[in-house]
Amino acid sequence: MTTDALQNLQETVQSWSSLTDDEQETAFRSLARDLREELFLGLTARDKAELALRMPAHERRTYMRVLPPDDAVDVIQGAEEEGRGALVETLDPAMRREVNALLAYAEDDAGGLMSPRFARLRPEMTVDEAISYLRLQSRHVETLYYAYVLDPQQRLLGVVSFRDLFIAAGDRRVDDFMERDVVAVEEETDQEQVAKLTLLHDLAAIPVLGSKGRMKGIITVDDIVDVVREEASEDIQKMGGMEALEAPYFDTGFWDMLRKRAGWLAILFLGGLLTASAMDQYEHVITQVIMLAIFIPLIIASGGNSGAQASTLVIRAMALGEVRPKDWWKVARRELLTGLALGAVLAILGIVAVLVGQAIGGMFGQYYILIALTVSSSLIGVVLFGTVIGAMLPFALRQVGLDPASASAPFVATLVDLTGIVIYFSVAIALLGGKLL
Amino acid sequence: MTTDALQNLQETVQSWSSLTDDEQETAFRSLARDLREELFLGLTARDKAELALRMPAHERRTYMRVLPPDDAVDVIQGAEEEGRGALVETLDPAMRREVNALLAYAEDDAGGLMSPRFARLRPEMTVDEAISYLRLQSRHVETLYYAYVLDPQQRLLGVVSFRDLFIAAGDRRVDDFMERDVVAVEEETDQEQVAKLTLLHDLAAIPVLGSKGRMKGIITVDDIVDVVREEASEDIQKMGGMEALEAPYFDTGFWDMLRKRAGWLAILFLGGLLTASAMDQYEHVITQVIMLAIFIPLIIASGGNSGAQASTLVIRAMALGEVRPKDWWKVARRELLTGLALGAVLAILGIVAVLVGQAIGGMFGQYYILIALTVSSSLIGVVLFGTVIGAMLPFALRQVGLDPASASAPFVATLVDLTGIVIYFSVAIALLGGKLL
Repeated sequence: MTTDALQNLQETVQSWSSLTDDEQETAFRSLARDLREELFLGLTARDKAELALRMPAHERRTYMRVLPPDDAVDVIQGAEEEGRGALVETLDPAMRREVNALLAYAEDDAGGLMSPRFARLRPEMTVDEAISYLRLQSRHVETLYYAYVLDPQQRLLGVVSFRDLFIAAGDRRVDDFMERDVVAVEEETDQEQVAKLTLLHDLAAIPVLGSKGRMKGIITVDDIVDVVREEASEDIQKMGGMEALEAPYFDTGFWDMLRKRAGWLAILFLGGLLTASAMDQYEHVITQVIMLAIFIPLIIASGGNSGAQASTLVIRAMALGEVRPKDWWKVARRELLTGLALGAVLAILGIVAVLVGQAIGGMFGQYYILIALTVSSSLIGVVLFGTVIGAMLPFALRQVGLDPASASAPFVATLVDLTGIVIYFSVAIALLGGKLL
Repeated sequence: MTTDALQNLQETVQSWSSLTDDEQETAFRSLARDLREELFLGLTARDKAELALRMPAHERRTYMRVLPPDDAVDVIQGAEEEGRGALVETLDPAMRREVNALLAYAEDDAGGLMSPRFARLRPEMTVDEAISYLRLQSRHVETLYYAYVLDPQQRLLGVVSFRDLFIAAGDRRVDDFMERDVVAVEEETDQEQVAKLTLLHDLAAIPVLGSKGRMKGIITVDDIVDVVREEASEDIQKMGGMEALEAPYFDTGFWDMLRKRAGWLAILFLGGLLTASAMDQYEHVITQVIMLAIFIPLIIASGGNSGAQASTLVIRAMALGEVRPKDWWKVARRELLTGLALGAVLAILGIVAVLVGQAIGGMFGQYYILIALTVSSSLIGVVLFGTVIGAMLPFALRQVGLDPASASAPFVATLVDLTGIVIYFSVAIALLGGKLL
């Protein structure tokens, strides 16, 4: 493969979902035979399914048979209901049995990620026997990084890495040096937990156990990367104030996209109506000191922005396990101080802004000092409140069983808008009462 | 390792950065010897460095020597300047040479991620010779997934996977079936690009080449997972309207944290001042129709929220390579339609809100129909504008060489606040002029 061909291939794979069906067909056909296979392997499961289903049956068979069973399952699950049969049919009988067994698992469970093709050994084998035995199996296994030692009932007794096997003297028994404390997951373990465990123990693959400790398959670290990316994408989209997409941007239909976005937008709009009715309560204040209205967007935005920072930090730290639910009090104390400091910074900018406005155009009349104080005190209150609410909302959502990532910047901003208005006008009434009000 | 001990260990590792130094010490000492090593290996590079530097010298030596060279480098780079010497000293002379060579690379480059310990073969070896030779090397290599075939000048000729080697007949020559088109990166390749290539080709490890195609090391997929997580965290933090942190939440000092957040907050505040001066231009409109002020937060927030959704979608799709710079027009067309539809949804909710307000309290007087029209037309305009700006800003930032992830929800909201005010009051003047104004 030349560097150019490689570059070209990468670009085609990455841009795939933005191409029309015809453009995809042209791009695919223009490649040499071996590059077509590379391309096919590089696509997402959903795109593989679509491409395979557009091929004539004999060609579809060729490409589907390149896939290991766990990937074949992903492709079949990536197809629309009516196309799945045509994909399953392409597999040879042995593979079809494996795939059908795997299709029974939920996509997000360990069972849905695993490959049933792992290297297995008996405990009583010697190292030399084990290596010969593995050479026989190697055509049918997904990864040759670890070999799993099983008893006749397929229960997992231990694991040896290929490195350990290679280092050991040829006549040693496998059960003499295998690792017996195996980190494993169960078929129903959620993929996020599988990823955490695999990464924590720096494993190249993690075994999946069924009932009675029977070994069912392995999940390799390259599948873990996909999980990590998928979970990050879901969190990011939720943090942007929408539902997570199930497919890449261009693969998501117009109506599906609209539904994922309109729901939250409407909920936030209803939240915004509460802000409007709070404004309504202060109509008399605005009527008397119209210049107070001028600072409304600035003040509530500052609260929303500091809230977005705090919630973003906490959501990500929670997702990575750096912050646990019971750390809420530590986080609260820290964000309280941070919020005060950030509020003070903006308060100073606010005072400067009023003084400059006064110096240039005398915008604020004789009570400009009071206006400056109102704006700056409100900023401290709003930023402090925004920061603390932004930091605590993810904890609260998690406490009631919701996803902390739903504490999106727009959600936090909506909460802070409402309270920001109340804080601002309360401060104004307190400071300006008797003078301007 | 029992399940309980394992569970306990995992919790300790995950909560590590939230513990004080003393609590860390207690947690570490309370573990059995082999679990201490597990714990140490599970920590981040920075935490490993801190823990090791608190140990007495002989113990530090024991733990540092467990690490492969690329991880040792990360730990040394994770320490403060003054602690690095004490860490390098713990290594034996051969390892010290390897580590010093690796320390010369930037942390984010391929060179900074690679391990120099890979399995190597000569092209003229037979399979049986190769397997025996690999058994000799295996103690000194990082991964036994691929073996790299080198000429006497250490130039990379090809690669064989262990599976291929195991499947092949014992008397075949390695260069007879090795893969000659090797996907590789250079020492200076950025880690994001390394991750993309490795994932695209589904590799367990990718070779790193120096000048004249000489093989320098390999990067394994478990290091790629760290890159993927790190890049996602950076993007998420930028998207929350702040600078990315270099360390976990609790590991970031108070002042460092403040600096990362205050900068953007102040910039956004200055942007908000523009909104305030736009408001000032419309002071006479507010004076005449005070109830227009009531809807200001609601309308600008709706624009900001739809903008946050659009920018989030585009930033993530760009990071995953689903959307490329040249797709901007496709995205613009799509978001134009989506923005119109979303605006229409909110416009309907806006009309209902005004009608309900009027029915309940006669809030809007005889011209309530005109108020409803003003609010709903503004919503369409603001949401449409927010959506399109949110979707296009990441493209624009990328075009001028900035990170698309800086098109954060707060940044987009600030832009949309300003234009939202202009749109709202322009619509108000057009519709209410001669009646209420």
